[in-house]
Amino acid sequence: MLTLAIDTATKVCSVALCRDGELLAEYNIHMGMTHSEGLLPQLEQLLKRTNTKKQDIDLIAVSMGPGSFTGLRIGLATAEAMAYSWQCLLHGVDTLKALAHNIPLEGFVLSPVLDAQKGNYYQALYQWQEGKLVELAGTEVVNKERLLERIAEFGTPALILGECKKLEKLELPNGVKLAPKTLLMPKASSVAFIAEQEFDSEADKKIFGLEPYYIRRSEAEELWEQRQQKQQ
Amino acid sequence: MLTLAIDTATKVCSVALCRDGELLAEYNIHMGMTHSEGLLPQLEQLLKRTNTKKQDIDLIAVSMGPGSFTGLRIGLATAEAMAYSWQCLLHGVDTLKALAHNIPLEGFVLSPVLDAQKGNYYQALYQWQEGKLVELAGTEVVNKERLLERIAEFGTPALILGECKKLEKLELPNGVKLAPKTLLMPKASSVAFIAEQEFDSEADKKIFGLEPYYIRRSEAEELWEQRQQKQQ
Repeated sequence: MLTLAIDTATKVCSVALCRDGELLAEYNIHMGMTHSEGLLPQLEQLLKRTNTKKQDIDLIAVSMGPGSFTGLRIGLATAEAMAYSWQCLLHGVDTLKALAHNIPLEGFVLSPVLDAQKGNYYQALYQWQEGKLVELAGTEVVNKERLLERIAEFGTPALILGECKKLEKLELPNGVKLAPKTLLMPKASSVAFIAEQEFDSEADKKIFGLEPYYIRRSEAEELWEQRQQKQQ
Repeated sequence: MLTLAIDTATKVCSVALCRDGELLAEYNIHMGMTHSEGLLPQLEQLLKRTNTKKQDIDLIAVSMGPGSFTGLRIGLATAEAMAYSWQCLLHGVDTLKALAHNIPLEGFVLSPVLDAQKGNYYQALYQWQEGKLVELAGTEVVNKERLLERIAEFGTPALILGECKKLEKLELPNGVKLAPKTLLMPKASSVAFIAEQEFDSEADKKIFGLEPYYIRRSEAEELWEQRQQKQQ
C-alpha cells in the first residue's frame, strides 16, 4: 500500500510517502511559512522527485488535530480534494498520537502536547508496549500544572514532545524531560504509519465530511458568543 | 549560523537546513535512486522552497563516511563545489556518529552500522551522557559475531541502527534490538547538528583535500591488486 501523508497541524509543513511501513520520502519545512502558500508546492516537488504517479497512491493520510484551526483546515481540504480527484482512500489520524509515534521506543511515558492558547495545552499520554502504541490517557485541554499532574499519574521516565517551547522555562519534576529537538515536532511519516495500521477499506472510502478534532472552539466562535451575550 | 547539510553515504539522499541547533527543513528520499541524478534537484528544491539565498549559508556540512564509495564521492564533490563557489565553510562529519545522533536519548548503547560488503559491517559504539554524544568505541570493520561481541562489552539496552536489514534474521541477545525503522537511516539534520558543534572557523576554510573515510579499500582496488599478484 502506497500512502501519501500530510501534517499541517502546527507551523511545520510535513509531507511523506510510505509503503507498507517503510519510509520512502519525507519533506519537512519549519520556517513559519503559511501552509496555504507552502503545502501544494511541497507536495508537487515530492511527487515529482519520487516519480510518483497519482494512480500509484492507495491512501491519503492526514493529521486531524488537535492543532492550529487554519492549518488543520488547509491540510484536510487538500487531502479531501486529492482523494476525491485521484479516487483513493482517505484516513484521518490523531495529531497527538502521530507525535507519540516520533519516539517509537519502549520504556518512556510519552506526553505529546499542542498549544491550545491562553496558557493551555492539548495533551494525551501514550506508551509503547510490546511494539504497540498504547493510549494511557485521552486528549484533554489542561494548564501547565494539570499537564504535569497527569504525567505523574503514569510515572517516569517521561518525555514531553510537540509544541512545548513555552515549557522550557518550567522546572520539570525529576525524570520528566522535554524530548530532544529533532524528535519534537510533527512528521508526516508518523501520520502515514498510523494510517496504514488503522485504515479501514470501507470506512475510508468516505471522502467528505471528515471533521478536524478541534476540541476547543475557535477564538472567533468564542468572541461571537461573548458579543451575543452582551447584546442580550 | 545557517548550515546546509548533505548525507549520501547510503541509498538515502538526505539534505537539511538548520540554524543554531534548530531544524528548519529536511528532505529525505529513500527509493534507490542514484545520487548523481537526485542530489542536485533535491538541494535546489529545498533552497527554493525555503527561499534561502546562497549568501545566507555559513556552513556546508557533509557526511564523510564510512559508507558507499560512490555515494560519498558524489556528496563530497557537491559539497566542495558549493562551498567553493559560495565561499562558505565546509565541515565533514563521521557518518556513524551522525547515525547515533538520530536517537538523542540517554540510557541506550547505540551501535550504528553500515554495510561494508562481504558479510562485514562498519561499526562504532556511542552513548548519550549528560546531553553529549560520547564515543564508546571507534569504527572497525567487523563480522556479525564480532559486531555483537563489541556491543556486549558495553551492556544493554542496546540499539543497532543504520544499514542493518541483513541483521533482521539474526537472533539478537537479550536487551539488544534493531532501532525502530523511522530512526534507522541517515538524516542530514543529524549531520548538520554535529557539524555546528564540531566546526572550526579556521580549519573549515580549507575546502579542498577533504577525504572520505573509506576505511576499507574499494572493490576495484582490491581486484586490481589481486590481478597484479597473479601476473607476477
